[in-house]
Amino acid sequence: MSSTDVSRLLGLAQKFNNFYLTGVPKGDIRPFLVGGQQVGLIKSDVYKQLLKYPEVFCIRDCEYTKQGLVELNPAFRDYNERTARLEKVLRDLRSEGLFSALQGWREECFEVKSEHRALLKMERAATPLFGVRKYGVDINGYVKHPQHGLCIWLQQRSNTKETWPGKWDNMVGGGLSVGYGIMETAIKEAAEEASIPSDLVKNLVSAGCVSFFFESDQGLFPNTEYVFDLELPVDFVPHNADGEVQAFELLPANECVERVFTPDFKTTSAPVVIDFLIRHGYITAENELNFTQIVELLHVPLQSLYTYKTRLEQKLQQQHASSLPPINKDDNSPTSSSTKRLLENGHNKKESA
Amino acid sequence: MSSTDVSRLLGLAQKFNNFYLTGVPKGDIRPFLVGGQQVGLIKSDVYKQLLKYPEVFCIRDCEYTKQGLVELNPAFRDYNERTARLEKVLRDLRSEGLFSALQGWREECFEVKSEHRALLKMERAATPLFGVRKYGVDINGYVKHPQHGLCIWLQQRSNTKETWPGKWDNMVGGGLSVGYGIMETAIKEAAEEASIPSDLVKNLVSAGCVSFFFESDQGLFPNTEYVFDLELPVDFVPHNADGEVQAFELLPANECVERVFTPDFKTTSAPVVIDFLIRHGYITAENELNFTQIVELLHVPLQSLYTYKTRLEQKLQQQHASSLPPINKDDNSPTSSSTKRLLENGHNKKESA
Repeated sequence: MSSTDVSRLLGLAQKFNNFYLTGVPKGDIRPFLVGGQQVGLIKSDVYKQLLKYPEVFCIRDCEYTKQGLVELNPAFRDYNERTARLEKVLRDLRSEGLFSALQGWREECFEVKSEHRALLKMERAATPLFGVRKYGVDINGYVKHPQHGLCIWLQQRSNTKETWPGKWDNMVGGGLSVGYGIMETAIKEAAEEASIPSDLVKNLVSAGCVSFFFESDQGLFPNTEYVFDLELPVDFVPHNADGEVQAFELLPANECVERVFTPDFKTTSAPVVIDFLIRHGYITAENELNFTQIVELLHVPLQSLYTYKTRLEQKLQQQHASSLPPINKDDNSPTSSSTKRLLENGHNKKESA
Repeated sequence: MSSTDVSRLLGLAQKFNNFYLTGVPKGDIRPFLVGGQQVGLIKSDVYKQLLKYPEVFCIRDCEYTKQGLVELNPAFRDYNERTARLEKVLRDLRSEGLFSALQGWREECFEVKSEHRALLKMERAATPLFGVRKYGVDINGYVKHPQHGLCIWLQQRSNTKETWPGKWDNMVGGGLSVGYGIMETAIKEAAEEASIPSDLVKNLVSAGCVSFFFESDQGLFPNTEYVFDLELPVDFVPHNADGEVQAFELLPANECVERVFTPDFKTTSAPVVIDFLIRHGYITAENELNFTQIVELLHVPLQSLYTYKTRLEQKLQQQHASSLPPINKDDNSPTSSSTKRLLENGHNKKESA
């Protein structure tokens, strides 16, 4: 594909996947293992600093893949010891002033999990240095306007926010926190950020997720956003309740696309808007030259980058037997009644009333 | 991930991506180049047969990647010579009876293109042997039923169809043919397969695409389906007009999911149904354990498997200069007025009235 075939939308999809498209193929990433499970990816700049703490990080090559690995010392006994030992290193690195990410230290913790097990807590500002996968929810608030057609509510983030201050963003969005379900988080954020009343929020429709892998000077952002659509009445106007939003604006779809292309829009929220406009027939294969490529870049296979343990197991399985185990027909489909356990990524299942 | 964490839906997503998940990582695929552009992927079983025709296929290693390549003899002058020389080999292979795919010979040609250039015509039955990317359209016909909630129309394919005879399938679907636009194909198929009148078909909504990579005993299926949604009145009943469908059935969402899991459902149509049920809030992160993985497997990065020329160019660029060209800001977004040229994959832009 020559560069002249890159549409503006594909250019944007490449921008919020800059690490997926150029960082990953370079190979300068090492799986970060905690408790035998891969929970992150570490680049050379961070790796070189971690070498100074051999009592905390075991840095070695995998004997099967010959790939470099960073492992939190497996001798640490439990959640609390892992958390404390890692925090000490992070505070040390922060005082050295080497990573701008750590200058945004928030004294707010992110729980690092693998599958269904909590492994440790990490200062939220440090997670991009370790390439920890992050999950969030976003609500596309939209109006079918009698004059202007499909219109979308955007929020302008408060100037005091730690990340992306003053930037335009989706109407409602937020990270998943310990103990909160996905739909529950969406409803909570809808109330806090946009004062959406319960009789409207009951129309929230789960509409899938977007996954992308962005890199900024803060580090790595392998993000998955669960997306929800909410059709709103023409006369509804959101207003903020928690001080995190300074303005809301309703834009016709064409103006919304233009806003997303400006530097005033939060890069990592663009995938949600593009996905919405594709699902609702505004961006189509007929009007967008690079349609299928863009759809692929809204759903990059992050899963395959965080499977170190799985791959190792497969390698071992291939050595010890010649066949893979059959797919387990365990009944966890939406039609099953036996889904009462932790969901993927360790999020609790908590459906609101 | 242990096998006990595989839900039925993830199992199905793994099934229609069996080649993406197990074939591709094995590395037993060679780019197939025509006119200097990669148009396919070739496995060993086919490769070994092609070795017998050194005057037609140049088989060599790429000097940069050291990867095996199969190239249609670049000395062939044009579209017609390429087509004729390839067809002779295919008829020869067919008479030898080595590939079951060729026993379904249809005397129907598929035009192989790269970017915006037609390269040759190939017998349709042979395309899986060369791993040529295929594009189709599918319409999700659905009803918001007052008693049964979200319901979906399925078709049962005619027992006389060349592929997947008698299997259940999406209400309307079809491959893209030379000279037809994407929306145009959807409208044409809606009339032929389900007799959908123009006053209903005008409500067709483009809703994205799904991409997956399936392998059967016929060969490779790197497929992209452009998906459309069509809400239908409760009292509308589709009926077939072209003899390719033997029955239609309206199923509530839960029964539709069960149908998709049966061996009576066309495996390569399952992604369209699953994508529909995700976008419409029936399959959610709260009720499906492997939600994000499934969404990723509905949009696998086929693009990255068909970029041999691009990668080669990049390699050369890296050798001859130290920087990549900047992203061209050519204005091809949906908001642009300058989109009057061929769309990706060489499909014509033809919007219906």
